[in-house]
Amino acid sequence: MTEQATPAPSPTHPVPAPRDPHLRAMANCIRFLSMDAVQQANSGHPGAPMGLADVATVLFKDFMQFDASDPHWLDRDRFVLSNGHASMLLYSLLYLTGYQDMTLDEIKRFRQVGSKTAGHPEYSHAEGIELTTGPLGQGIAESVGMALAERIMNAHFGDDLVNHHTYVFLGDGCLMEGISQEAISLAGHLKLGRLIAFWDNNSISIDGATSLAVSDNEIERFHASGWHVLEIDGHDTDAIRQAIETARATQDRPTLIACKTIIGFGFPTRAGTQKAHSDAPGEAEIAGARNILDWHSPPFEIPDDLLKAWREVGAKGRDARLAWADRVKAAPQALRSDFERRTAGKLPENWKNAIVAARQAFIADGKEMATRKASGDVLNHLFDAIPELLGGSADLTPSNNTKTKQQVEIKPGQYAGSYVHYGVREHGMAAAMNGIALHGGLIPYGGTFLCFSDYCRPAIRLSAMMRVRTIYVMTHDSIGLGEDGPTHQPVEHLAALRAIPQLAVYRPGDAIETAECWELILEQPRRAALLALSRQPLPLLRNEADGENRSARGAYILHEAEGGPRQVTLLATGSELQLAVQAREILQSEGVPTAVVSMPCRLLFEEQDKAYKRAVLGHSPARVAVEAAVELGWDRYIGPEGRFIGMHSFGESGKIQDVYDKFGITTDAVVRAAREILKDIAV
Amino acid sequence: MTEQATPAPSPTHPVPAPRDPHLRAMANCIRFLSMDAVQQANSGHPGAPMGLADVATVLFKDFMQFDASDPHWLDRDRFVLSNGHASMLLYSLLYLTGYQDMTLDEIKRFRQVGSKTAGHPEYSHAEGIELTTGPLGQGIAESVGMALAERIMNAHFGDDLVNHHTYVFLGDGCLMEGISQEAISLAGHLKLGRLIAFWDNNSISIDGATSLAVSDNEIERFHASGWHVLEIDGHDTDAIRQAIETARATQDRPTLIACKTIIGFGFPTRAGTQKAHSDAPGEAEIAGARNILDWHSPPFEIPDDLLKAWREVGAKGRDARLAWADRVKAAPQALRSDFERRTAGKLPENWKNAIVAARQAFIADGKEMATRKASGDVLNHLFDAIPELLGGSADLTPSNNTKTKQQVEIKPGQYAGSYVHYGVREHGMAAAMNGIALHGGLIPYGGTFLCFSDYCRPAIRLSAMMRVRTIYVMTHDSIGLGEDGPTHQPVEHLAALRAIPQLAVYRPGDAIETAECWELILEQPRRAALLALSRQPLPLLRNEADGENRSARGAYILHEAEGGPRQVTLLATGSELQLAVQAREILQSEGVPTAVVSMPCRLLFEEQDKAYKRAVLGHSPARVAVEAAVELGWDRYIGPEGRFIGMHSFGESGKIQDVYDKFGITTDAVVRAAREILKDIAV
Repeated sequence: MTEQATPAPSPTHPVPAPRDPHLRAMANCIRFLSMDAVQQANSGHPGAPMGLADVATVLFKDFMQFDASDPHWLDRDRFVLSNGHASMLLYSLLYLTGYQDMTLDEIKRFRQVGSKTAGHPEYSHAEGIELTTGPLGQGIAESVGMALAERIMNAHFGDDLVNHHTYVFLGDGCLMEGISQEAISLAGHLKLGRLIAFWDNNSISIDGATSLAVSDNEIERFHASGWHVLEIDGHDTDAIRQAIETARATQDRPTLIACKTIIGFGFPTRAGTQKAHSDAPGEAEIAGARNILDWHSPPFEIPDDLLKAWREVGAKGRDARLAWADRVKAAPQALRSDFERRTAGKLPENWKNAIVAARQAFIADGKEMATRKASGDVLNHLFDAIPELLGGSADLTPSNNTKTKQQVEIKPGQYAGSYVHYGVREHGMAAAMNGIALHGGLIPYGGTFLCFSDYCRPAIRLSAMMRVRTIYVMTHDSIGLGEDGPTHQPVEHLAALRAIPQLAVYRPGDAIETAECWELILEQPRRAALLALSRQPLPLLRNEADGENRSARGAYILHEAEGGPRQVTLLATGSELQLAVQAREILQSEGVPTAVVSMPCRLLFEEQDKAYKRAVLGHSPARVAVEAAVELGWDRYIGPEGRFIGMHSFGESGKIQDVYDKFGITTDAVVRAAREILKDIAV
Repeated sequence: MTEQATPAPSPTHPVPAPRDPHLRAMANCIRFLSMDAVQQANSGHPGAPMGLADVATVLFKDFMQFDASDPHWLDRDRFVLSNGHASMLLYSLLYLTGYQDMTLDEIKRFRQVGSKTAGHPEYSHAEGIELTTGPLGQGIAESVGMALAERIMNAHFGDDLVNHHTYVFLGDGCLMEGISQEAISLAGHLKLGRLIAFWDNNSISIDGATSLAVSDNEIERFHASGWHVLEIDGHDTDAIRQAIETARATQDRPTLIACKTIIGFGFPTRAGTQKAHSDAPGEAEIAGARNILDWHSPPFEIPDDLLKAWREVGAKGRDARLAWADRVKAAPQALRSDFERRTAGKLPENWKNAIVAARQAFIADGKEMATRKASGDVLNHLFDAIPELLGGSADLTPSNNTKTKQQVEIKPGQYAGSYVHYGVREHGMAAAMNGIALHGGLIPYGGTFLCFSDYCRPAIRLSAMMRVRTIYVMTHDSIGLGEDGPTHQPVEHLAALRAIPQLAVYRPGDAIETAECWELILEQPRRAALLALSRQPLPLLRNEADGENRSARGAYILHEAEGGPRQVTLLATGSELQLAVQAREILQSEGVPTAVVSMPCRLLFEEQDKAYKRAVLGHSPARVAVEAAVELGWDRYIGPEGRFIGMHSFGESGKIQDVYDKFGITTDAVVRAAREILKDIAV
């Protein structure tokens, strides 16, 4: 018997002959870099990059307006990979098109600590990563914000300065997430014709065939939300090109291009199956793909001619960019300087005068005022000073006080304005605001009830992680919401939000602190911020004319103890600050030297040095914290002898004062707690 | 000149003549109770109850299978008010149909502290409130779970015992929330023909006309998800009746009945406008409604004949209920006792043998094992013992280890099974599980990555608030997730979840604790629970044969200090428990008596008495806590001299050990921290 070679297994999904061998070869560069990187990392998701490689090749080669040598060019097209697990698709494109910091070494260090090539694309890790994606559905929702920002900027600055597309790739998982519906619905309503989405319609998810869990007609679904929908074979490069052309010609509606693809295109046995989705393919599968796709380079090596072709793609936008730069230079001086200032993320000079004016008005008025109302007043003052502020609310405009008198509403097809009715789409709003902030030129803020921060939480997390200045205006911030009851009364939300790294949670205690918090938010361009604001009116507790921002260090001594060394420290935030002030008066009248510490922002306080923290918290162990929320996190400041006056359960429906009384969050309770500690430590 | 009466303003929406004056009068009972209650409370939402009154009257009078004298009848139809702000609609129905605890006094105490009539319907506040609603979209998603539970119970127990409908009212806001898409998509996929939804299509939300923010074709959208859709005039009682009949006859698909309604139907000037949505209408508006609707009773008074008619509606299901009870009695003994046990929420005798068996297997095996794997093994042992366990995952079945070998998958139209592929719909899954748990007869558990608890958070909050035994199996619970990186690595989630009142968050440290946590979860029928489980293998740290559940008190001394009074206490949870155990060995070897405290459940520990807590935490101030998560909440246990080894930022993509090293979460770091405290306090 003669020895026989084992025949290669017949491919489960035979590879169709390419329309254009050169394009297929260019796409194969993406496929093999993706396979090789996942194999080397022994971890990752090869299937989607391989399935989407043809679409990406046509899009980047023939349409994407960008210049790899200037990743920050404002008028570049935006590319969003909503199915972020396909990160090797993006990293391959960045390397191939010649982004300087995406080296082959970085590709080889895929998914290793310290690399630019994390498991999912991380904003700011490398140039060309427009945003962080991975949690499914976030990318499509953020891209709606980007596309909206483009239109708003276009309406203000004209076609010469802002005129580009937003392209987004998304997978089956993105479409199953509820946030995708909010995004699709909002984009369709607003007629965002510059948004073009590509659905990687490969019918595979982690549990197996998508038919295990979903039977939706996605074409009909997008159509129901006013989208233009096209269906193509995602491996037919002619069809891809034609679809993109049709989509670009359709300017009154966003377009979905449903691309029928084979996950793991090129794998001999895994193509079209769940096994191609995640995990390293193994040497045999890669060897098979080499045969099938006629690829002869060693791992991580791209043939010179193909690399050259790709580098040309990365450089082809250079002329357009230079022409744009000339147009910027030729623009009227005022427009140009406004454009350059805004897109550089700089605030106008003298914007702080608006804050000063708001403070002065509050002091002149002197009356009780809800901090949500104070926030609305601050925004009214800011409107003229900072034209890039873009407001909105998730259908709670009159409650959130987010709309200033002057703001013009954005409407379908009419983008010359600065207020967005986001609808009852908290999550979609939050993600869209991230996209708006990332686009550049606009500062988004949006409102809902604090309780519904839960609905936006995955997007809030990304705001914090990406360090973008997305501003959450969240009112009705405690049981002080009253009659709507426990489902609408935030109790655990302050703690839960303070737990998010890098997120600045502000809870001002009166109108003056509200102005201070807005000032702090606006002067920190790389920090996501959330304002927790009261429904109920609060007394004005400050009246300094000097305008010093006392909230800037996160916590400060509002009233120092008098008549001797401090015996008691009362800590409070927001609507409970008044209780601490009243309790101090009682304790002082009893001869107990008592200080009140206001702590509008825990994060900023934690950044102070030890000496400042000690001075604020005082040396007496008699500390009482009062906040109409759960205790979690307060132990740090009150210490083992301290007491906490706040919530230990969900809230209850009722009149505001009745609810506070019911849960024992009162001046008396604060006074009593202080007395008890003094007694305990005297023993 | 003679005095002339001011003419009444012409109504903005003239009231159409009723098809059936008696039905209109019955509906007006709901309208006036709602108006009167909102007016008295000076707070609430009158518009939706007034708009939906005709639909509710026909549904309850002619279709709803229920008996007001036995609210817990298992085979009753379920009624879900997803637009929970329309709570007065439900309270009116409960009072009118004669639920004993819904008195007129309660209606008069609408939205007051201590009443059964909270601003939004609160489960367990009054009989007949099937679930807590208010956060928009939750009700429709929970009703999908209820309808699925009905089919699964029907498949197991047959038409004689379980055979009912789930009816859900929803508003425009529910449809704008992303969770509604997850719910609609899942219900359509599973062909839940017993689910009938009524859309209150009134085109008004808080910001104004819904056209400000939404342009979706909802009919097409539901159709795209496989629903049967009907469109009717929501004030035409004949059309309503006919639509419900058609919907009930359609058993292979869920039905949406789009009801065109006038918000605030009957108000003279506010009908059909945003002003009818929220807030007290004022006396003038109510007086106008009295004229228009021909209503002559004083506030809160229902004419005897109408009350009698309504009480008959509440009693009409009595015979059906008694017949059902007879069928239960006549059922085969084994089926009957199983049915009665399960629907009473009692576990089978001897179920704990499965836990014992799982523990024994872990000890016999003795190897390293991820707690997610241990959880899967426990479930395999539990499968035969507790047939009412209903598993599932949001498309992470192989990662979450949620599917046992024996479980049969639920498929469209095929409900004889015990595993649900929920798809990439974490939020919809969580809410559906609430509905399943509330339905009775099933114990739902479902998996995703811990990081994506953020996507389910509004539903998790409701699990906790309603005290239902919904079980969240959340794996990949820290930076130990590794290469997928910061977007997938939970950091703040443990703190954020522990902040939710009444939610038991379990983070077991090895396979034995995993079995203990499952035991604790299952034996507490009124507590929502979340398991945080490791991706990475963990050593077995326990090997007692006695089977005592040491996790039952939330925290316990895993190893007491030896060789003298305790000098150091190391606290840990989950995958970091092994670091504490290793650190203790080093410290003991250096002659430092060191204890290790394992704290798998903070909530249970907080419920212990002071003496136990003190004994566990020890008297030495040298305490070190180690957890691969943010510090928030740990100060409480480590005190001012204590140290925390954990996360102070988001995570990073990389190999597990590299990531732990990068963030300094190591045995050495724990040892060093202990030594430093001992040095500090010795000074």
